[in-house]
Amino acid sequence: MQSKWSFSLIAIIVAFMVLAAVPCLAAGDPLPSWRDGAAKQAIITFVDKVTREGGPDYVAPRDRIATFDNDGTLWSEQPMYVQLFFVLERIRELAPRHPEWKNNPAVQAALAGDKAKLMKMGHKGILELAALTHAGITAQQMQELSAAWLKTARNPVKHMLFVQMIYQPMVELLAYLRDNGFKTFIVSGGGVDFIRAFSLHAYGIPSYQVIGSSLKSKFEFKDGKAEVIKLPEINSIDDGPGKPENIELQIGQRPIMAVGNSDGDLPMLQFAASGTGARLMMLVHHDDATREFAYDRKSDMGRLDKGLDMAKKNGWLLISMKNDFAQVYPTAK
Amino acid sequence: MQSKWSFSLIAIIVAFMVLAAVPCLAAGDPLPSWRDGAAKQAIITFVDKVTREGGPDYVAPRDRIATFDNDGTLWSEQPMYVQLFFVLERIRELAPRHPEWKNNPAVQAALAGDKAKLMKMGHKGILELAALTHAGITAQQMQELSAAWLKTARNPVKHMLFVQMIYQPMVELLAYLRDNGFKTFIVSGGGVDFIRAFSLHAYGIPSYQVIGSSLKSKFEFKDGKAEVIKLPEINSIDDGPGKPENIELQIGQRPIMAVGNSDGDLPMLQFAASGTGARLMMLVHHDDATREFAYDRKSDMGRLDKGLDMAKKNGWLLISMKNDFAQVYPTAK
Repeated sequence: MQSKWSFSLIAIIVAFMVLAAVPCLAAGDPLPSWRDGAAKQAIITFVDKVTREGGPDYVAPRDRIATFDNDGTLWSEQPMYVQLFFVLERIRELAPRHPEWKNNPAVQAALAGDKAKLMKMGHKGILELAALTHAGITAQQMQELSAAWLKTARNPVKHMLFVQMIYQPMVELLAYLRDNGFKTFIVSGGGVDFIRAFSLHAYGIPSYQVIGSSLKSKFEFKDGKAEVIKLPEINSIDDGPGKPENIELQIGQRPIMAVGNSDGDLPMLQFAASGTGARLMMLVHHDDATREFAYDRKSDMGRLDKGLDMAKKNGWLLISMKNDFAQVYPTAK
Repeated sequence: MQSKWSFSLIAIIVAFMVLAAVPCLAAGDPLPSWRDGAAKQAIITFVDKVTREGGPDYVAPRDRIATFDNDGTLWSEQPMYVQLFFVLERIRELAPRHPEWKNNPAVQAALAGDKAKLMKMGHKGILELAALTHAGITAQQMQELSAAWLKTARNPVKHMLFVQMIYQPMVELLAYLRDNGFKTFIVSGGGVDFIRAFSLHAYGIPSYQVIGSSLKSKFEFKDGKAEVIKLPEINSIDDGPGKPENIELQIGQRPIMAVGNSDGDLPMLQFAASGTGARLMMLVHHDDATREFAYDRKSDMGRLDKGLDMAKKNGWLLISMKNDFAQVYPTAK
């Protein structure tokens, strides 16, 4: 009886010890949708070294800042930025009530479905159309309109819901970084309210860790209620040099990791690269025409031209979607 | 032997259970520097109800956003804003190299030590002087200059280091909120880089949860290094209506709790108050001439005039420093 009891008690103790230790144990492969290879290994090596206390590359949790572009980095941006589909639908809806839009070439391109012209407008063009369609509403209303649209809106090429076209390997990477004490931020050329409509659900990133392009706004107190109303005027274009500028303004620290996919992300990567200590710069290369889309140097949207050369020259990690992603999109639930 | 062994083993098990439970136990009074009374009770009641799962006032952790003004709310702002002392010193240092400043009335007031004039300039005036003295440097350099200055700079009335003049009850309140799943933000009329120089150490608030007044900036890539340089142009005055406008831009959610001390904080409090569900709006009333300073309706700096009436009318919590704070500043270490 004695040994049996003692054995039971020891078993219970062991169980408690295991339970207490669970949060500290590696939960198997943290990046199952990444193929084993140089890219995956580089990520894991980087995270291991900056989190190893006492090691030469250790970085305190408060400085573990990672910034991610959104369009083409966390979800698909072809055949057009998702937000552009949304804005076009809003333009079509609202145009009958706005005869003054008749002389606006961007609106006319939108109404005519002139894709070539629209694609060349870039983030600034979208923001100008957004300024027309979103002015006079609150950020909350904008997020609700976006979220409602995203519930049913589908990619015209892949016929999947846009929100299903997030990259599973990136979702895993974001969670892996957070599990290792990183703060993960989105720094996107897209409109900040549009991204906030799905960032928590899709990526686990809360609204206050989303930086994006934005309109100016105005505080109003009416009928006993305070609101902040969008104005039809651009506040900030969070693309190119605007990315590090807004990182300094809103984060106030230089990231130790920056991830993008196009030439508009290069200033952000250069900014991360210019700090001291261990750092990781990554560019997603869209080279998988079968499972996603293949485009780089000549694309109107998400062009990666200078970036291909800079990645090589600076030793930045170039992620091949074809070779490094074992799976592109999340498995449908 | 059997019972002795079993007892030892049970003791070990109990020890493990206690260790496992420690994070879940209430650690006594979370607000020891607050006197027991209506204000302290209102805070605890609010936190209890928004964190009670299944209760009618429950708020999910992702929506537990609390915003705090800094000057006069988290630390003393008399006889002048701390940052104004810093900027004046910078002006004096740099003036010999800037003959063009001779025609600037704000600079002349600064050099003449014309306190009455300086105090009337408010956050905008400080920011204009800051624009002169901080242009051309990076946020990092600005934070380093500020931090170095704060190491020795003292309040001329109280003769204490400025960084020792943070309010111990507010430091406890911030920690109490975070322990209950809140995200705590500073939303200050002061310059964002200046506050970031001490916010983590003083309040446990990281740089990316500090919103403040700011200058425009410009990305530069020179000699292989990327930097963001401040321009001598105001980007945003985070005071009055600027507070809710910047909350929408940078946090993207309506706070459920907002704390200030002056009329410049009222739009932020109105914005918090206009949401649905449980919320808590607080104003710190400086009524303790002995331990801190006494000022309200007629003060040039941190004026609380309309706010006193609005607090009464709207049922906002008015914190009496004299009666509600058992201790004002942290005990010197």
